[in-house]
Amino acid sequence: MSDRPPSNARPSNFEIVCRTGCARLGRLKTLHGTFETPIFMPVGTNANVKLMRSDDLKRVGASIILSNAYHVAVRPGLEVIELHGGLHNFMAWDGGILTDSGGFQMFSLKNFRKVSDEGVTFVSPYDGSKLFLTPELSMDIQRTLGSDIVMVLDHCPPIDVGYTEALDATRRTHEWAERCLKRGVKEGQLLFAIAQGGAFEDLRRASARYLSEKDFDGFAVGGLSLGEPFEMTLRLAHATVSELPDDRPRYFMGGGSPRTIIELVAIGIDMFDSVYPTRLARHGAALTSEGRLNIKASRYRKDLSPIDHRCDCLVCRNYTRSYIHHLLNRGETLAGMLLTYHNLYYMFRFMERVRESILNGTLEEMRREVAEIYEERRGSPVDVLALDYNGARRHS
Amino acid sequence: MSDRPPSNARPSNFEIVCRTGCARLGRLKTLHGTFETPIFMPVGTNANVKLMRSDDLKRVGASIILSNAYHVAVRPGLEVIELHGGLHNFMAWDGGILTDSGGFQMFSLKNFRKVSDEGVTFVSPYDGSKLFLTPELSMDIQRTLGSDIVMVLDHCPPIDVGYTEALDATRRTHEWAERCLKRGVKEGQLLFAIAQGGAFEDLRRASARYLSEKDFDGFAVGGLSLGEPFEMTLRLAHATVSELPDDRPRYFMGGGSPRTIIELVAIGIDMFDSVYPTRLARHGAALTSEGRLNIKASRYRKDLSPIDHRCDCLVCRNYTRSYIHHLLNRGETLAGMLLTYHNLYYMFRFMERVRESILNGTLEEMRREVAEIYEERRGSPVDVLALDYNGARRHS
Repeated sequence: MSDRPPSNARPSNFEIVCRTGCARLGRLKTLHGTFETPIFMPVGTNANVKLMRSDDLKRVGASIILSNAYHVAVRPGLEVIELHGGLHNFMAWDGGILTDSGGFQMFSLKNFRKVSDEGVTFVSPYDGSKLFLTPELSMDIQRTLGSDIVMVLDHCPPIDVGYTEALDATRRTHEWAERCLKRGVKEGQLLFAIAQGGAFEDLRRASARYLSEKDFDGFAVGGLSLGEPFEMTLRLAHATVSELPDDRPRYFMGGGSPRTIIELVAIGIDMFDSVYPTRLARHGAALTSEGRLNIKASRYRKDLSPIDHRCDCLVCRNYTRSYIHHLLNRGETLAGMLLTYHNLYYMFRFMERVRESILNGTLEEMRREVAEIYEERRGSPVDVLALDYNGARRHS
Repeated sequence: MSDRPPSNARPSNFEIVCRTGCARLGRLKTLHGTFETPIFMPVGTNANVKLMRSDDLKRVGASIILSNAYHVAVRPGLEVIELHGGLHNFMAWDGGILTDSGGFQMFSLKNFRKVSDEGVTFVSPYDGSKLFLTPELSMDIQRTLGSDIVMVLDHCPPIDVGYTEALDATRRTHEWAERCLKRGVKEGQLLFAIAQGGAFEDLRRASARYLSEKDFDGFAVGGLSLGEPFEMTLRLAHATVSELPDDRPRYFMGGGSPRTIIELVAIGIDMFDSVYPTRLARHGAALTSEGRLNIKASRYRKDLSPIDHRCDCLVCRNYTRSYIHHLLNRGETLAGMLLTYHNLYYMFRFMERVRESILNGTLEEMRREVAEIYEERRGSPVDVLALDYNGARRHS
C-alpha cells in the first residue's frame, strides 16, 4: 500500500547546513514547506492550537504544528476530515503538520486502554465507544489526515517501569514500527520512527540502533519528559541520539521549555513539541528575557511595562503587564489569548536565536544565558522543568 | 469643576446628513473620531470586549465601544487607569469609548446595593467592600477614565415596577442628571442624559421633555430591553423619542439584535449597545444572512459551508461550519473567538446596510427583510428577542 519509492531512490528530505559541537542547523523539506531546524512545534491536539487562529499562528512564526491522530480520529472523525480533503483544510492551516500516532495516549489515557501485540484498544471516557488502533490503522488514519510528518504507532510506557516491562514495550514498538513501514504512507509524507527503552541506557541504545537500520525519514526520542529528573532526560536522550543516523532529523517528543530545548539541541536534537508555552499562558505565566513571570502576581498590578521589554510582538507593543494582570484577575479569556500569542512569539524568536547561535558558534554562550535566566527564578534546573514534567504532559 | 464652555458657545457634535421617515443618518464627533450613525457599540464591561483583541476589534469595523465605569472603578481601580493615562491606553484601544455610569448595575446587581437620593451604595459580592456612588463621583470617575461619551448616573428600575416607584426613580434620575451636569465633564467629553419612566408612557414623555431642556450632548432611552415584550419596548421608546430634541443623538441602551436595531432606527434612534452578538457567539450561535444559526446543532457536523456564504470576514473566508461545530463539540475556546469575530463583523456590515438604506430610502425594504429572516426561524418578533431580553442583560 506504500506509495513511496524505496529510500535509495528518494532524495533526502533533510540537509544539515552547519554544526557546532553535536548541534546541527538543518533544513527539513515537507509537503507544506521547508523548515529550518532546530524547530519548535506548538501542540494542536483537537485540530487547533488553543486560543490561536491559524492566521495568528502564522503571524507569530509557526511553520509546523503537532496534532494528534488519535484525538482527531475520535472527534470529529475521519469522514469529516476526509470531506475537507485533509487536516490542513479542516483547520485552515497551510503550514506543516506532524501527527502523533496515538502511542502517547496509551500513556496519558492509561485508564482507558488495553494493549496487546496486535494493537491497542481505547475506550472513550465520554461514551464508552471503542477504537482498536493497530499500526496499520494508525498509518491509514494519518494518510487520510494528510500529515506532512507521520509518526509510527509506538508503545510508550511510564518512565518508572522495570526492565522487563521496558524491554517488552521496546520490542513491541519495534514490531509495530516495521508494520507501519510495511503499511506505508502517501507519496511525500515523511515517516518517523520512535525509539523507546524506558529508563535503561542499554535499551535506549539498542532501540535506536535497531530502528536506524530501517527506512525511516526521521527518528524520535519517545517516552521521556514524563516526570523524570532533567539529568536523566539528558542522559537517556543522549544514549538514544548516539546511535541514530547523523543524516536524518531527530525529534524529541513532548519537551519544549527553553532550557529543555537548548540542552537537547546541544546533544544533537533537531525538533521539539510541547504544550509548555501555550499551557503556561492559560495559567497566566509569560516567557520573557527575564525568565518566566507569573503575571497574576500582585506586583504586576501597576506595572506599565510590556510583558517583555525586549519583545516586539503585537502584545508587547500594545498592552501592559498591568492590563493583562487585570484580565487574569477578572477571569477574562483575553488574558490567555494575549499570553499565548506572546509566549509562542517568544518561542519562535528563541528558536531563531538557537539557530543563529549554531551558525555563529555561540551556542555555549546561549546555553549559559538560558541556564542563568531560569535558575535565578526557579532554583535548580530540575525545578525549571517542573511544569514541563508534571503539568504539561506531552499532548494528552 | 466643568471645563466645558456653555452649549451656545460650543459647536454641535452631531450632524444629521439625511433622513428617511423618522430615521436619521448622522455624524457624531468625539475625541477619538467621528462616527456615522446609526451605530452599534460592542460591550467591553471589564475593559475588554470578550475574546477580542483591540486590533481585531478595529479589523471587524468597531469604532466605538461601551465600557462600564462602575466595573472598571472597582477592578482594576481608578489609580491603575490613571497611571495609564485613561481607559483608552489601558485597553490599547484608540477608537471611541462610551462609559455607562453604574446606573444599570443598580438593576443588574440588585442584591448588592442600597439607593437613596444622595447616591447608591454597592457592596462587592467578592470581598464585601463598599462603594458609595454619587452623581458627582460618577462624573469624576468617567473624567478619569477619559471616556468620549459620559453617561449620567441614573436610577434604572425593573420594568415591572408600579407607577409610584417608576415616578420616584424618574424624579431621582432627573435630580442626578442635574447634579452630573453641574459637576461637569472634561473638555471634549460628551455628556448624555438618560430618560427613564418605567412602563408608563406619560412618565417616559415627561422624562424626555424634562431632560431635553438641559444642556446635554445626547439623550439615552434607559430602562428598556429588560424582559418586556418587544411591542412594549417600541411603544415606550417611541414615547421617549417623540419628546427628545431632533438635533441631538439618541441612544437606546442595551438593545442590539438586528431586529431591535432596525425597528428602533425606524423611530429615530441613532446609537445601540448590546452583548447580543458577543454572548451569542460564546453560546455557539452565529448571525447570518439566513438568520441566527446554532452551530452546535448536529446538522452542521459535515457542513463545509462558511458560517455565512454572503460574508467575507476572515472567519468565513477560512473556516467551515463543520470545523467550528467540532471546536464547540470539544469545548475549544477558539470556537467562541471565531464566532465573536464573525458576529461582530456581521453587525458592522449590518449597520452599514442600515445607513445605506437611510441614504437610499430603502429602509422599509430592509425592515421587511430582517423581519422575515428572523421570523422564519424564530416564530414571532418577541421570540427573536428572547435572548436579548432574558439572557443578554445590557452590561451587567
